[in-house]
Amino acid sequence: MADEITETSQTVAAGQLRAIIERIERLEEEKKTISDDIKDVYAEAKGTGFDVKAVRQLVRMRKQDQAERQEAEAILDLYKAALGMV
Amino acid sequence: MADEITETSQTVAAGQLRAIIERIERLEEEKKTISDDIKDVYAEAKGTGFDVKAVRQLVRMRKQDQAERQEAEAILDLYKAALGMV
Amino acid sequence: MADEITETSQTVAAGQLRAIIERIERLEEEKKTISDDIKDVYAEAKGTGFDVKAVRQLVRMRKQDQAERQEAEAILDLYKAALGMV
Amino acid sequence: MADEITETSQTVAAGQLRAIIERIERLEEEKKTISDDIKDVYAEAKGTGFDVKAVRQLVRMRKQDQAERQEAEAILDLYKAALGMV
Repeated sequence: MADEITETSQTVAAGQLRAIIERIERLEEEKKTISDDIKDVYAEAKGTGFDVKAVRQLVRMRKQDQAERQEAEAILDLYKAALGMV
Repeated sequence: MADEITETSQTVAAGQLRAIIERIERLEEEKKTISDDIKDVYAEAKGTGFDVKAVRQLVRMRKQDQAERQEAEAILDLYKAALGMV
Repeated sequence: MADEITETSQTVAAGQLRAIIERIERLEEEKKTISDDIKDVYAEAKGTGFDVKAVRQLVRMRKQDQAERQEAEAILDLYKAALGMV
Repeated sequence: MADEITETSQTVAAGQLRAIIERIERLEEEKKTISDDIKDVYAEAKGTGFDVKAVRQLVRMRKQDQAERQEAEAILDLYKAALGMV
């Protein structure tokens, strides 16, 4: 009796588990497609003559707060000067 | 004269650069949305009583070739036995 | 006058900054050496016929609490069975 | 007979496997100690008033070739100017 109940409850769980995993797999595929699209834009930028590393850095920098970024850059410049790095 | 040409060519490049960066930013936003959707599915799975770590592992395992995965598991079991790990 | 003080204080800071950075660089070199040693042991294991991926997994598993690991493995086996994965 | 041989060969392998894993674990412990030492230096730098993020960036920059770094910085400055980022 207990086994039967367990089996039934496991059968239900299996269906739920499969549904969850298939949803995750579909979303991961979509995510992969977008990641590939991003790579394509960078490849296109490179093809047009842009420096990809600098473009990546700009994308990162634009996410930061401008005042915070400027302050961080000022500190770094101060430290570079202190070490004689030009 | 040279300056003018340079300026014009830089103006064009600025437009192109801005367009590239805005395309990347839009794609990164879409990617972020999908990442959040994936997190939501895992949260929902957790809410339903599933073990999230095991679900993640299953998703990873289903990407592998079945025969390769089975062989890897057999080797690991052999090594665990050799070390007395149960 | 103010400039002189500033210069002196910056000179001190520069010395401190350089000392800090050189200490970090020395430690990072030592860390790199050990990382290389670890790679060498894995390469040696591979050379002796061991499966490196399984060895890595064993090293990871031995860091876990045994009871927790066994429970996690039991859950994963249950989920695999529910999905008909062998 | 075959079983005996197998058992013997597995016994040898078990000893070797254990030795390999223990060497890796010792090295990983040493690596962890050094990682902690590095964290301590950064914490000390922070305590003395240095900006830790800038120090990290300096450490990274000093690993790069100077000419390459200067060129990368010049390109980034050009792109920032093109986008009106100050």
